[in-house]
Parts: sequence; C-alpha cells; structure tokens
Amino acid sequence: MIARSAVGSDAVLEKARLAMEELRIDVLLLTSPENVTYGSGAAPPTQRRVASRLAAAILPLHGETELVVISVEDGVARDQSRLDRITLYREFVEHPIDVMAAALERRGLGDGRIGIEELDLSVADARRLRERLPRARWAPVDGVLDELRMQKTPDEIELLRQSGRAADRAAREASRLARAGMTEREFATLLDEQFVAAGGDGLVMTVVGSGPRSAQVNAPPTDRRLERGDVLRMDVIGLKSSYYSDVARTAVVGEPSAEQRRVHGVLHEIHERLLAALRPGVDSTSIYAIYRDAMEQAGLPPYHFVGHGLGIGLHEEPFINQYTSIVLREGMVLCIEPITLIENAFGVHIEDQVVITADGCESLSGTDELLRIGE
Amino acid sequence: MIARSAVGSDAVLEKARLAMEELRIDVLLLTSPENVTYGSGAAPPTQRRVASRLAAAILPLHGETELVVISVEDGVARDQSRLDRITLYREFVEHPIDVMAAALERRGLGDGRIGIEELDLSVADARRLRERLPRARWAPVDGVLDELRMQKTPDEIELLRQSGRAADRAAREASRLARAGMTEREFATLLDEQFVAAGGDGLVMTVVGSGPRSAQVNAPPTDRRLERGDVLRMDVIGLKSSYYSDVARTAVVGEPSAEQRRVHGVLHEIHERLLAALRPGVDSTSIYAIYRDAMEQAGLPPYHFVGHGLGIGLHEEPFINQYTSIVLREGMVLCIEPITLIENAFGVHIEDQVVITADGCESLSGTDELLRIGE
Repeated sequence: MIARSAVGSDAVLEKARLAMEELRIDVLLLTSPENVTYGSGAAPPTQRRVASRLAAAILPLHGETELVVISVEDGVARDQSRLDRITLYREFVEHPIDVMAAALERRGLGDGRIGIEELDLSVADARRLRERLPRARWAPVDGVLDELRMQKTPDEIELLRQSGRAADRAAREASRLARAGMTEREFATLLDEQFVAAGGDGLVMTVVGSGPRSAQVNAPPTDRRLERGDVLRMDVIGLKSSYYSDVARTAVVGEPSAEQRRVHGVLHEIHERLLAALRPGVDSTSIYAIYRDAMEQAGLPPYHFVGHGLGIGLHEEPFINQYTSIVLREGMVLCIEPITLIENAFGVHIEDQVVITADGCESLSGTDELLRIGE
Repeated sequence: MIARSAVGSDAVLEKARLAMEELRIDVLLLTSPENVTYGSGAAPPTQRRVASRLAAAILPLHGETELVVISVEDGVARDQSRLDRITLYREFVEHPIDVMAAALERRGLGDGRIGIEELDLSVADARRLRERLPRARWAPVDGVLDELRMQKTPDEIELLRQSGRAADRAAREASRLARAGMTEREFATLLDEQFVAAGGDGLVMTVVGSGPRSAQVNAPPTDRRLERGDVLRMDVIGLKSSYYSDVARTAVVGEPSAEQRRVHGVLHEIHERLLAALRPGVDSTSIYAIYRDAMEQAGLPPYHFVGHGLGIGLHEEPFINQYTSIVLREGMVLCIEPITLIENAFGVHIEDQVVITADGCESLSGTDELLRIGE
C-alpha cells in the first residue's frame, strides 16, 4: 500500500503545473496506469487487468485535483490518493469517459485546452470523449509526462532505493538457499519470497533462465531443473509502492567454469566503467558507445541498448542506446544493464538501479557479483 | 510456458475465419495483449509492462497467419506461437505499427477491410496506421472477439480447470499452513507458493484482506497481522499458461463466531443455488436476480454483479448483472461469486470457476467451505 505522502505529491503537482503554464494547457487528463499513479498516488489494482475499468487523474492548472475511478476501487483510492477529491463511477451503469467529461465540464473546462495521452487513450474512448466535449481543444501530452517523470523527486528516489535493495537481496538470498535439482519455477518462487522478506511488495515479471535458456531474453521460468555447471540468469522485476525494481544477476550452479568466470568478469568490468562514466551533462549515446566498444573489444555480441529510466514505468525515458541522445541530469534514475547472450551456450546479465547525483552516480541496488548456487 | 498445442489453435482460427467471412473482413489485426495471446498462443511478457512494445496477431481470411513482435521476445515467440510466421521488429529502429502495416501491404491487403481493436489501439497508433495504409477500410472488431472468446474450446476448458484447481488448493493449503500473527503480505506469499506448488504459473493480483479490511473490495495485502477472530478474505488471481484463475475463499482465524458462520452459510447456500440454476438457454439476468433476491431476503447488501466470463481475460463476457442480458451456452466458463461486504465488520466472498455443460454446469475449482486458520 502506498502511504498518502510517499509519492512525489506536491512536488509532482508543482512540476506538472509549471509545464501546463508553459504549454498553455488548462488541465491534464491522465489515463495510463503509470500516469494515474504518478499524478494521484493511487494504483487501482484492476485498472491494468480489466481494460474497461478506466481511471483518470485530473490535474487542472487552477482548482481542485480529482481522481476518477471505478467504485469497486473505493477503498484503495481512499487509502492511496493524494488528490483533492475522488469521483467514483458505477460499473455497467456509467461509462467512465462520460464521468471524466462531466468532471471537466463541471469545472468550466468544456471549452478548455485539455492534455490527453494519445499513446494510451483508445480510438473508441477518444471518440466518445470528443463527442461529450465537442468544444474542447486537445493537446497530446505523452512527451510532457515522459519529461516530468525523468527527473525523480527525493521521495521517488527513496522508493527506488527500497525496491533496488530488496531485489539485490532477493537475488543473493535465493541463490544462497537454492540447490541443484530445483526447477526454474521453484527458484522464481524463492525469489519472490525473498523479495517480499526484504521489503518489496512482490515480483510482477520474473525472468529465470537456466542452462542454454539463460541466453534467451526475457525467459519465463519453466519446469527445467537446475544442473551442475548451469548459468542461471535472473531479472528481479517487482514493485515497492508502485515503483519498480529491475535488477539482474547471474549465478552459476556449482563451480563456475573458466569461460563463465571470464565472461562475467568482462561484463562486470564494463558495468563498473559505465557507472564511472555517469554524471550530469553526459550524453546518453556516449554511455552506449562505451558499452558497445568494450563488448566488441572483448568479442562479445552487444545488445541494442544498455540502460533505461526506471520509476513507475519499467522502461521509461531516458533510453541508453545509439539512437536517442539525451543529456543526463541529477535525479534521473537509470538501470544500467550490460548483457551478453551467447546462443546455445549461456547469457550473463548485470543490472543495477542508479541515481545520477551532483557529480556522478550512486547505486540503489548494491553491487554485482557472480552468485553461486550449491550443488 | 504455453506448449505450442495447448491453446485453442486450429479451433480458434476456424472460429475467427467464420466470423470474418460473415462480416466481410479480410484480415484481423489483433493488438490487445489478450487477443494477441488468443490469436497466436504467444504471451510476450513485456507487452503488458512496456507500452511501446506493441505486438500483433495477423489472422487473414486467406493465407498465412503472422505474429509481429519485438525482437527481444524472439525466444518466447518461437516457443509459444502457433502462427505460420513470426516477424520481429527492432526496438528504437523500427516502429511496430510500420512493421504491421508493411506486413498487411505485402499480402495485398493495403486496400482491404481490416479488423482492428478500437478499444485497444491508441489514438496515436491508429493515426500512424491510417497514414501508412491510406487505402484501407477499417472495421472495429472488439465485440467480435468478445463473442468468439465467450465459448471456450476443450483445450481452453482444460487450462481453466488446471488454473481453478490450483487456486482452490492454494487457498486451502495456505490457510492450513498460516497462523495468527502472520501479516497479510506473508499470507499472500504463502498463497503464491502454494499456487505454484499446485501447478499454477504464479499469482498476478492478490486480494488478501483481514479483519475490517476483509470488507474492502480488492484489498491488496498489507503488513496488518492476522488476529484471532479475524475474517480473512482472499481472491486467488493467477495464471496457468495465459489462462486466469479467479477463485475466492473466506477463512476465519481461530473459532468462527456465530455471525461469521451465519453469513458464510447464507452465501454458501446462495452460491449452490446459483450453480444449480446454470445451464444452456438461461438468461444471465435471471441468474443475477436469484442472487439479489436471496441477498435481500437475508438482509445482506448485494454487489452490482455476481459473475463474469473468465479465460485469457480476467473479466470478460458474459457479465452476470441486472443490465446485460446474455443467453448462456455450453462451453462458456464463468466465475460465480456471491459476495457481501459489511462495512466496519467483515466481508465474505465465495467464487468458483464453472463451465456450462450440456445440461447444467461443472465446477472447475472444487467446492467452497469456510476455511480455518490456526491461532
């Protein structure tokens, strides 16, 4: 559960209002699960799972903020929302878009300039919204929100520290407790248990690939049993009060081979060089270049990106690749994740959550090492 | 992992082609996570979590079927997809919509009648698609897919039996192993562990509310500790090869009070009456009426629906409420879930997955009883 004050709260609203002023937008109608949470603090659990259960955070330039949510999420909304009011709609009886339109009309914003998420709002819902508010003017604000969310508030950084530490500890503890013979699924359960024990809310997407499957990207856990000599690659993707963890570690069952040690050593060294290069003012593509060049030098296949923003979204701006150039700023939280996937052999993956500080960066998820699983 | 043959496969494609013929649609471009899985068998794990990682199942009336998916999901796609071909797009370099448009153009369908999901496709993506295929004609197919998915194939029913049994067993085992003093979060971890042990893939949304929180809808687990006399209401929502479980049970810590027993007994009896009324040809609103009338007679607040379809979607058609009238058919899988939430006291919830058979229904998730947690 998110405490009422845990998320950015006033700091987020203040940033949003500055952006609205600059862009001459009267109100933000945020509808994606990520931005409903970012704007309101509330994460109605069924919004992601039942497409018809739309929610919206209404953030006007002036006046009361408002959360529109299905009545069955009343309890969660009251516990978590930090907006001025909560408006509930009744499933099957009221269409959520109509309730949102009415909320905007009631504020006299029916002919206002309304910021909407064009990458989230569906064709059918957008059509209904335009029909309900025929005099409104519409502005896409997807990029604006990406920009706002890039630089984290101190509260957000604290939650990402908690998620990062829980993930790092879960990887270590699960590896310590696991044994050869266990299935990937059983390992995934152990990982989840340890993530919760370390203060996380729970894993939401677990990558556990062992043996040749460690070279498969995003491998979901299967009934394959861990064998002596296997590499096990894990990506610990969980949540702490709506903020993601995304930490990857590599383990070996029994004694690592010379080749396994070598490849992990190369990746580990590259990881440290990447962290050492992070600081405000640096261009994101230059970070990717360090990774690509080092991988080529080591004769290992590089991946198409080596990092991404992390927060309420699992992958958010900035992306660290060769295509998008973004200048790093203090307060950005990035996952730095050198990875190499050697087909039909094994994969090694190291991923940490780091925050850009005034003169460098700080890891929010501890330090990588090659983990060991007992035989 | 979904075995290649596990999901409806040819049966689904055949149903889809009959619908396309009837509606004079040349091709279905399915983009929602649910329908990508329904149409292809594949569930790319990041599609739900990273909005830019679009995927599509392309099902033409004539010719090869095709899955379009981000290259990082190659392994999962190859393991799970049963479509004729897989087309991968490169993140940051190619826009998925352009790749989908090119795939349609390549088949000579650039001026065809293309079925799209207007409740899933975003405003921005739909605009891009129209720009790429200016001669195409568009048909919304959201309702068509709802209709197709309502009646399950034998393979789908088997998966829903596995998910239902795992959820029922998880609720029983977790209650047997739990003790007063444990937190709701710890109980949720136990539930997940037992769900996996019983053959499920893992829980995706857990409702665990104890004490007065048992009267809160969709209560996420917190650090509240179970106390003697508490009602604990759990909703076991997990996945088995992309098919949901949705089973609710109610437990009491220690000896149930007379009032707790009475309310559970009333709900249990209503649940049995509802199951006894299910059979092909019955109108869904008449099922809701049985629930509402019985609740009113017992002086308990009724909920606004008492059932819903279950499958690749958590809540799908048909809904069992007083507003939507649907005639039940053999092969539909429904969750029947009488619930009562007595504010500031406790909630009781009984939910089972049932399949409509030729002359009645069969529970896929065992039988409800009031569960007991040791002091």
